[in-house]
Amino acid sequence: MLFLGVDPGLRLTGYACVGVDGPSGPATAERPRLIEAGVFRLPAGRPVADRLVELERDLADAVERLKPDAAGIEGLFAHYKRPITAVAMGHARGVILLTLRRAGVEVVELKPTRVKKSLTGFGHASKRQVQEAVQAQMGLDRPPTPADVADAIAIALCAARSASSNTLPAL
Amino acid sequence: MLFLGVDPGLRLTGYACVGVDGPSGPATAERPRLIEAGVFRLPAGRPVADRLVELERDLADAVERLKPDAAGIEGLFAHYKRPITAVAMGHARGVILLTLRRAGVEVVELKPTRVKKSLTGFGHASKRQVQEAVQAQMGLDRPPTPADVADAIAIALCAARSASSNTLPAL
Repeated sequence: MLFLGVDPGLRLTGYACVGVDGPSGPATAERPRLIEAGVFRLPAGRPVADRLVELERDLADAVERLKPDAAGIEGLFAHYKRPITAVAMGHARGVILLTLRRAGVEVVELKPTRVKKSLTGFGHASKRQVQEAVQAQMGLDRPPTPADVADAIAIALCAARSASSNTLPAL
Repeated sequence: MLFLGVDPGLRLTGYACVGVDGPSGPATAERPRLIEAGVFRLPAGRPVADRLVELERDLADAVERLKPDAAGIEGLFAHYKRPITAVAMGHARGVILLTLRRAGVEVVELKPTRVKKSLTGFGHASKRQVQEAVQAQMGLDRPPTPADVADAIAIALCAARSASSNTLPAL
């Protein structure tokens, strides 16, 4: 199965696709394959509406190309330090939810602390700790950068584990 | 010219279309015609992604039917009392900006205080004052309800006035 992780932002949206096969395949929930990861980079100077059109197109292309079975996205925090930045992120998150749902991809919302705990064992891990955990667990040469890519991989892994423990008894 | 006003929300999104003709037509920026107004009501129990898919469809249908020349939407506040509600609203606002822009509709972002001042002369008018000003200026039998519809009409009127003072010298 293929799991897409998305870390929304109006400037950078990280995305990652990981593959988790059944017991007979080469990958498991503990050692999944990294299929593709990167960022959708939106030009800061352009109007928000134009950036959202671009984000929708980039994500729809990725979904079309990768054909994920399910997607993970972080749930909303209870408190935001900078509300206006959070609202701006909400614009990107809304377009991402719309695009995934319209493409028929099931979307799992994961608490940020759950994602961090799933990767590092610690719900309040730093960005650096998440990057290092992702590197170790995916067997990468170096920690993924920017941090948005590591976050997206972490979200995809957490979504895969959540699916394997909840709904995939064969794994 | 036709101006669409949109007041975004994840439960209720108000929309209104007002017509402002040139000097030879029956309507002016001071006494525009109300073409259509209402709310897109999204079922509260459904997942956010499903609600956004429905909002996109409803708004795209309205744009197709009404063919507005431009649209107005309120800009972001500097401060939000309830950040998580504001982020949720950001989801709807993102989908609205995307849908309008993709349909080729020019979008004007208007400060909430500017919309209120344009209608009532007072940038911090109450919802009731906005409803009454909309009723008086559109020659309606009663104030539009819910308040989201009055807000959408106010935004459409403010967008029309803003266009007529900035870019439509003929009016």
